[in-house]
Amino acid sequence: MANSQQMANAIRALAMDAVQQANSGHPGAPMGMADMAVAVWGRHLRHNPTNPNWADRDRFVLSNGHASMLLYSVLHLTGYDLPIEELKNFRQLHSKTAGHPEHGITPGVETTTGPLGQGITNAVGFALAEKLLAKEFNREGHAIVDHHTYVFLGDGCLMEGISQEAISLAGAWKLNKLIALYDDNGISIDGQVAPWFIDNTPERMRACGWNVIGPVDGHDADAIDAAVASAKTSTDKPTMIVCKTHIGKGSPNRANTSKAHGEPLGADEITLTRNAIGWSSAPFEIPADVYGDWDAKEAGKAAEGEWQQRFDAYAAAFPVLASEFARRMAGDLPRHFAQTAVDAVIAAHTKAETVASRKASQIALETFTAKLPELLGGSADLTGSNLTNTKSTPALRFAENGDVVQVEVQLGDETVKVGGRHINYGVREFGMAAVMNGIALHGGFIPYGGTFLTFSDYSRNAIRMASLMKQRVIHVFTHDSIGLGEDGPTHQSIEHAASLRLIPGLDVWRPADTAETAVAWSVALSNRNKPTAMLLSRQNLPYLAKKDLGDISRGAYVLSEPADVGLARKAKAVIIATGSEVQLAVAAQKLLAEKKIPVRVVSMPSTTTFDREEAKYKKLVLPEGLPRVAVEMGVTDFWWKYGCAAVVGIDTFGESAPAGVLFKHFGFTAENVAQTVEAALQRAR
Amino acid sequence: MANSQQMANAIRALAMDAVQQANSGHPGAPMGMADMAVAVWGRHLRHNPTNPNWADRDRFVLSNGHASMLLYSVLHLTGYDLPIEELKNFRQLHSKTAGHPEHGITPGVETTTGPLGQGITNAVGFALAEKLLAKEFNREGHAIVDHHTYVFLGDGCLMEGISQEAISLAGAWKLNKLIALYDDNGISIDGQVAPWFIDNTPERMRACGWNVIGPVDGHDADAIDAAVASAKTSTDKPTMIVCKTHIGKGSPNRANTSKAHGEPLGADEITLTRNAIGWSSAPFEIPADVYGDWDAKEAGKAAEGEWQQRFDAYAAAFPVLASEFARRMAGDLPRHFAQTAVDAVIAAHTKAETVASRKASQIALETFTAKLPELLGGSADLTGSNLTNTKSTPALRFAENGDVVQVEVQLGDETVKVGGRHINYGVREFGMAAVMNGIALHGGFIPYGGTFLTFSDYSRNAIRMASLMKQRVIHVFTHDSIGLGEDGPTHQSIEHAASLRLIPGLDVWRPADTAETAVAWSVALSNRNKPTAMLLSRQNLPYLAKKDLGDISRGAYVLSEPADVGLARKAKAVIIATGSEVQLAVAAQKLLAEKKIPVRVVSMPSTTTFDREEAKYKKLVLPEGLPRVAVEMGVTDFWWKYGCAAVVGIDTFGESAPAGVLFKHFGFTAENVAQTVEAALQRAR
Repeated sequence: MANSQQMANAIRALAMDAVQQANSGHPGAPMGMADMAVAVWGRHLRHNPTNPNWADRDRFVLSNGHASMLLYSVLHLTGYDLPIEELKNFRQLHSKTAGHPEHGITPGVETTTGPLGQGITNAVGFALAEKLLAKEFNREGHAIVDHHTYVFLGDGCLMEGISQEAISLAGAWKLNKLIALYDDNGISIDGQVAPWFIDNTPERMRACGWNVIGPVDGHDADAIDAAVASAKTSTDKPTMIVCKTHIGKGSPNRANTSKAHGEPLGADEITLTRNAIGWSSAPFEIPADVYGDWDAKEAGKAAEGEWQQRFDAYAAAFPVLASEFARRMAGDLPRHFAQTAVDAVIAAHTKAETVASRKASQIALETFTAKLPELLGGSADLTGSNLTNTKSTPALRFAENGDVVQVEVQLGDETVKVGGRHINYGVREFGMAAVMNGIALHGGFIPYGGTFLTFSDYSRNAIRMASLMKQRVIHVFTHDSIGLGEDGPTHQSIEHAASLRLIPGLDVWRPADTAETAVAWSVALSNRNKPTAMLLSRQNLPYLAKKDLGDISRGAYVLSEPADVGLARKAKAVIIATGSEVQLAVAAQKLLAEKKIPVRVVSMPSTTTFDREEAKYKKLVLPEGLPRVAVEMGVTDFWWKYGCAAVVGIDTFGESAPAGVLFKHFGFTAENVAQTVEAALQRAR
Repeated sequence: MANSQQMANAIRALAMDAVQQANSGHPGAPMGMADMAVAVWGRHLRHNPTNPNWADRDRFVLSNGHASMLLYSVLHLTGYDLPIEELKNFRQLHSKTAGHPEHGITPGVETTTGPLGQGITNAVGFALAEKLLAKEFNREGHAIVDHHTYVFLGDGCLMEGISQEAISLAGAWKLNKLIALYDDNGISIDGQVAPWFIDNTPERMRACGWNVIGPVDGHDADAIDAAVASAKTSTDKPTMIVCKTHIGKGSPNRANTSKAHGEPLGADEITLTRNAIGWSSAPFEIPADVYGDWDAKEAGKAAEGEWQQRFDAYAAAFPVLASEFARRMAGDLPRHFAQTAVDAVIAAHTKAETVASRKASQIALETFTAKLPELLGGSADLTGSNLTNTKSTPALRFAENGDVVQVEVQLGDETVKVGGRHINYGVREFGMAAVMNGIALHGGFIPYGGTFLTFSDYSRNAIRMASLMKQRVIHVFTHDSIGLGEDGPTHQSIEHAASLRLIPGLDVWRPADTAETAVAWSVALSNRNKPTAMLLSRQNLPYLAKKDLGDISRGAYVLSEPADVGLARKAKAVIIATGSEVQLAVAAQKLLAEKKIPVRVVSMPSTTTFDREEAKYKKLVLPEGLPRVAVEMGVTDFWWKYGCAAVVGIDTFGESAPAGVLFKHFGFTAENVAQTVEAALQRAR
């Protein structure tokens, strides 16, 4: 029989010692949640430390990510490739034990947490992905997808508004295999939370369709164990287990104080704590029997082995499904993808339709969703505006019993019964973004979701997190400028395109027509380690004549030369434009041609992509010495990086008026662009 | 006796006619909430249409701002300066009837709404400001501050996570004079909300300390009237009245459908609706008796007159308090402010302390909070890190009975009893920002609040809204770079300084030392029509020798010339730096001086402020022809606007490690800056 008390104390010791050694970190939460970890990691979690990528492992999310030492401790103790040296290097450069848990850095860390409230929301995404994959792939007698998602979270996560979005969605989606353990210690950084956090959390959760267990004694591993066992029996509701804990549990003088939260206990208090909890081992030393009690390698191998047998039987019975499942979980695109993408782009070019780029996106999505069953779309209550839905993505719905409702749709050439593939996220932009991160991290799906570009503000930190975690999550941001018109400045994006481009690792596309939009989608889908933001117009955009489609994917290309408007001279200036403004650049080029001023037009749908191009290509597109004028309906600051002589942009908020009126009002006319180029040429003389 | 039915139908008619005329807008919500408006605006709201600025008016917030035609209708009908021509010009350029209600454009619009969830949160700020001002200024028998805050909100607001932050805070703060009316119509843009919004909202509200009334029939003005009357009797809880309504009420074919939400009904349906509701007037015509029933001008004048009598009696009894109240509500700074600010800056200069700029901010705040009682601080659960609290700003607390707890503090030279002036917002960054917007809009306070810079992502849209509304709200963003150290990339700002600078109208300061920080605060406080973001270091910064303090407030100034490091030559290059990197620029200048390379150092604490300077000053600071090198621990893209030859910055995410290690890792050393300048000079040759 395992010694649960010493198992928990091992976490406490590692947490306080590592934080002390780093002279930085958060000992209180790991010490407080140590018994919860014993119950979940020691008795319930189905995982294989020697294969952190086992497809059917239970997922564990530490939503209160500052408790990272708890996670590092259990990963080390249960047998992941995280040697004790890494724990000694807690919070040091290039260690595997960053200040907050980082997916991709530490084996077994399912998602990067720290920004509060997002972990629980990621977990909702994990649990949703599991439920949808189970419905799609499991067959009678063959449950190859059947795992739980566990999440630890604290007061901080529950205070963050995004938690409400997560809670509401989990309830609405009846995610019965989501089990949240609430570290209810009544303390946040500013002290006892009572004056600023009076929520009756169990009642709040019940009001949103959750099963609530407890409060249980959060230091009684048996009680928590029993609660988890009970939670697993839920068939139609997610479960929250309220664990009453003491932050810094074990520390005689710091327990139950906010002092335990975010600083080392200090050598003296650590000694006192060791004595109090009966832990006599030296720092970073764990008795062999405690290691033995924690070791999950054998059990993990056995569990995965048992699953592998089941999977082999499944593969024998359903070979096509099995290989499709493997492909999906690996995140590989189907073999036909390259051809499908080319076809989509060529079809757009051939039809040359005048449509809004949001509609162009839907046209591209019609093709891609029909052929890529891993696409899982959605919108934050703007489906008809974002145009994220397609014929092959019926709305996701759940039956009363919690089951995914299946409907017949046309997928490619066949009619198949599928679960819903377009999610009504409700008016929850941040929640949508963080759920999508969880879905992508789970694997099996490529999530995309829509809202108005301006409301990317709401979801901004989750977009950043997707980028930090290198996840293929695609944001469809429509109504991307003053072209939105009458809704006015609250809804009109001004600074958003530029400020999204500043997020490291995020690709931003603002395509000008149907072909560029199809390319944008194909690149976004191909970029398996990158999130993408698509900025799409509300208003119709003409198809732009182009000779070659091959360079669009490089992010910028020469769309039109003086010769294309009948001027047999070399360009004297370059107009760079994106999205809806490329047509203006082309129109200005014509006006200038009438004055015998030869100008090149560069369409630059993705500055982030172009910036990664080789210098040679960049110079081909933007030759040195030619004055450059950028045109984009957004803040001008961004464009100086391309050495522009002038920028036609907007540095104030928009106005409420019809789009056509606003274009004139803010100077987005071919005439103004042409004049700006002329003025730039005069200054350059 | 007023004809409530026709009063409501007047709103319905104006809403459907204006939307039809604009061919754009949202008729469904105004039609659905028309009876709620009759109950609140027709029977309870204490306001004076001829003086929208009456200090003690009830505040009304339309949180579902897309229902703007409801607000424009009642403003017009009750007698505000909003003639029918303006309603005919709904959503046209320069009309007073923008797509969403805009504060500062339309008389009687208390806050700009549209981005969902923020209106209810602003309303919490309004109600808090009322409660605090009442406690501070009212005297026995003299209730000069005594008004309610009403808010209409819909499903969309309640789905947004920020609503939970608002609800929690209102409950914790026992805002009994906050009355929210929930337009519970069960429809959002994507349709019947049931599949994605299963919250039991009344239970959720009760769990957060609210008084909930209803559901009542949202089309029964008498029932709503009675509910409001009951809500007004609450002494320790905010109230939500659940009004069951039909979106598009009155429209035979559109009512209860999402089609009613966001598009004109069309001429035929409008005719059908007119017939169905018994409204025979032509578009934009209102029968005289309906105007008569709505007219609130006389009653408003009488109400304000009665209050004015009370205020006069108060002024006679407490002349100093009365003039202070008038000053505070006018938003004027005290007469001594200019001197106080100068003293703060000179004190910083004289002491020349080496402290983190977050500590420098606290030092400045000690001075300003002691002398400016209107300062109302706070932090999103990071008080000890943001250092937003001071000796004269005790924590805000409420007694069981809902009363503001008062404590004795030293304010300037006297000991006074004050209510708490530092708010523990909990871990609710977005909520904090939107509550601060409400506080600023109410008047009487200058709100400021803190969190880590990276979490400005969470509050970003509320910062934008402060800017759009031209409100004096001050954001204290500490831990502003990789200098935050071990917490790692989730907490380290990379793109944040640059992306905040892109928000139109927002001033951003990133001061380098105590004097610059004191100047930043004095400018932020003086800018009555602007929000400010202060970006402050976690780590200590040396005081930088300077000859003159006068130009700091211009946003950028020459900090050091070659002569200051013993080189009798004119500068050949300029290093521009901000905040914690200015010391690096100075150190690099010395290294270069040893190589006889004369360099100027420009400290640029506020690019946004500097950008507004006259061209002459700009050229003085950044002479043409000299290569410029910018140094900032953030994305480089921003800096090209100053024509830089090179930028020492970071275009990737940070790392978890001690700050000193990171500075070297990312090249933030004097040596690297000096080498970058040398290289730039070589290229320029």
